[in-house]
Amino acid sequence: MRETLAEWRPLVDEAIADLVPREIDAEYLERFFGGPTYEYDPDGIQRALADPLWELLDRGGKRWRAVLFLVFIEGFGEDPAEYLRYACIPEILHNGTIIVDDVEDEAAKRRGEPALHHIYGQDIALNAGNAMYFLPLKILTQSRTDLPADQRLAAYEMLMDELNRTHLGQGMDIHWHNERDVQITPEQYLEMCACKTGCLGRIVARLAAILTDQPPEVERAVATYAELTAVAFQIGDDILDVENSLGRAGEFGKEFGNDVREGKKTLLVIYALAESDPETAERLREILALDENTDEEVLEALSILEDAGSIDYARERALELAAEARAAIDGLEFDDETDRKLREFTEFVIERDV
Amino acid sequence: MRETLAEWRPLVDEAIADLVPREIDAEYLERFFGGPTYEYDPDGIQRALADPLWELLDRGGKRWRAVLFLVFIEGFGEDPAEYLRYACIPEILHNGTIIVDDVEDEAAKRRGEPALHHIYGQDIALNAGNAMYFLPLKILTQSRTDLPADQRLAAYEMLMDELNRTHLGQGMDIHWHNERDVQITPEQYLEMCACKTGCLGRIVARLAAILTDQPPEVERAVATYAELTAVAFQIGDDILDVENSLGRAGEFGKEFGNDVREGKKTLLVIYALAESDPETAERLREILALDENTDEEVLEALSILEDAGSIDYARERALELAAEARAAIDGLEFDDETDRKLREFTEFVIERDV
Repeated sequence: MRETLAEWRPLVDEAIADLVPREIDAEYLERFFGGPTYEYDPDGIQRALADPLWELLDRGGKRWRAVLFLVFIEGFGEDPAEYLRYACIPEILHNGTIIVDDVEDEAAKRRGEPALHHIYGQDIALNAGNAMYFLPLKILTQSRTDLPADQRLAAYEMLMDELNRTHLGQGMDIHWHNERDVQITPEQYLEMCACKTGCLGRIVARLAAILTDQPPEVERAVATYAELTAVAFQIGDDILDVENSLGRAGEFGKEFGNDVREGKKTLLVIYALAESDPETAERLREILALDENTDEEVLEALSILEDAGSIDYARERALELAAEARAAIDGLEFDDETDRKLREFTEFVIERDV
Repeated sequence: MRETLAEWRPLVDEAIADLVPREIDAEYLERFFGGPTYEYDPDGIQRALADPLWELLDRGGKRWRAVLFLVFIEGFGEDPAEYLRYACIPEILHNGTIIVDDVEDEAAKRRGEPALHHIYGQDIALNAGNAMYFLPLKILTQSRTDLPADQRLAAYEMLMDELNRTHLGQGMDIHWHNERDVQITPEQYLEMCACKTGCLGRIVARLAAILTDQPPEVERAVATYAELTAVAFQIGDDILDVENSLGRAGEFGKEFGNDVREGKKTLLVIYALAESDPETAERLREILALDENTDEEVLEALSILEDAGSIDYARERALELAAEARAAIDGLEFDDETDRKLREFTEFVIERDV
């Protein structure tokens, strides 16, 4: 395995470019999608698929879903370089969900630049995002010669399983955004994360297990590891948003208190609503429900979270989840190198500061 | 088979209700999507999935994709009543694309009432539409006991094939909408229809063939039939929009000249651009490119289409396609009843007046 994880990034991008070239022509379309009945319009597909996809990928992203997949592949004793094509599956899926989520959330920015629907129009952005849900699934069909039928079927059934639950998670999250007085338990919040974020992690792990023909208990173990790591990552995100905002409370900027402005019902909010006195809880609910917030209101909400002990509570839950994630793969016989890398992933998700 | 096709509609709706009940509870979620890691929020899923889905289905629709599937099943010698569950696959997919298309097109209305994103918000509507892309695919996994592995795999690979090309078609269509001076050949227009509309028809036919274990040449034949019928249907739609608008040119209403107002590059437009003198063609291009059109402009564009002979040309192409569709299944040994029903489908698509 390459020494540092970052070394895989350009190779992953090369593999993605084999699947969706930067320049689309009729020959590629025929090869990848099958011959047309009449005549394709390569220029149209260029603009509707390749341009938005590469615009997003070229802005950055760590490709960590692809890298985690390759770590598993090596842990299972196979050569990661031969599985680069499959590493693109979760990566393209993930970037597709980003484009669609940004439309759903009416996001202005993505990775520091205008969200894709602001550049290409909502119609092109959405269709490109949706195309990126199905395009990677075709990779399995195209691997007929390498991949036995039972593995292809297992991969498809796994993907349908997880992609269904992804949409349940997103549905719960959106519904909670939209409703002021919705009651959410911490367990429901964790489930939303497990579905929305965790399922893509599960895809990474289960795909690696299926393609290297691991027994079911190994597939389950790595899926649990990836799911819990992803949930811990999401909670880490929620904590960071509050901590960074409190840390630079003096310099009100656009990035200040994003989650409060969006009215997100994070684990920190759920905890504070349950732990604060009724009046304070009602005030928090009120601020979150407002369409626009002043900086003072945002700061007030952040203080309510802090005073309720939400940050400590959330950090404790995230640490527990990371520990559970590591415990899930304890019984597996990975080499030391793989063990170290997988441990690093669970540490990164709660110790990072950006 | 039930005497009239319409008799199947309530049975199809019952089968859909088995897959997505009108009232969501935790027991259903566990059964259909698998147990949660923590705890589902049934109210959230109710609002994010079941409500939008049933709102759309209850507004009408002929369920003709499901019915055509059942016609094939009976033609292949099986009992349609036992395949109702699978008939839901193309039907739910189709309704999912409607919700997403309406967001992409910024449609105001659907089946005479506000488009779903105007009722539920764009975020919920989109996520519901996308969920309806994956939900029906899970039906195959859930049919493990009835359906041998090779049929499930063939169905998945077929679906990935067709759903990828669906998004190519939609991408071309959107791109052409957005670009004023795009050059499109009639063959590219037919390809767009073959991808965007035809692929869902192909899913109907190929799924019936796969689930009843037909040989490849039979699957290809019914797929061609369904694809060409769908393309003819699309052209029939384009003709109807122009004919109805010209027929009631006196009573300008919202429904008058929709395609012109949207700037759609239909087969009629492509033909008129090629056949008219340069000045007239430029004027047509100009009217289509305007964000808003006066009724006079719409009427002018419609007249250009008529004067160029676009209506006759398009009708001829649609009739050819319908004839090709019938010819594609000529060699198959369907009973007379099935033959009659399949012939009726191809006649309906070009002879209907609504």
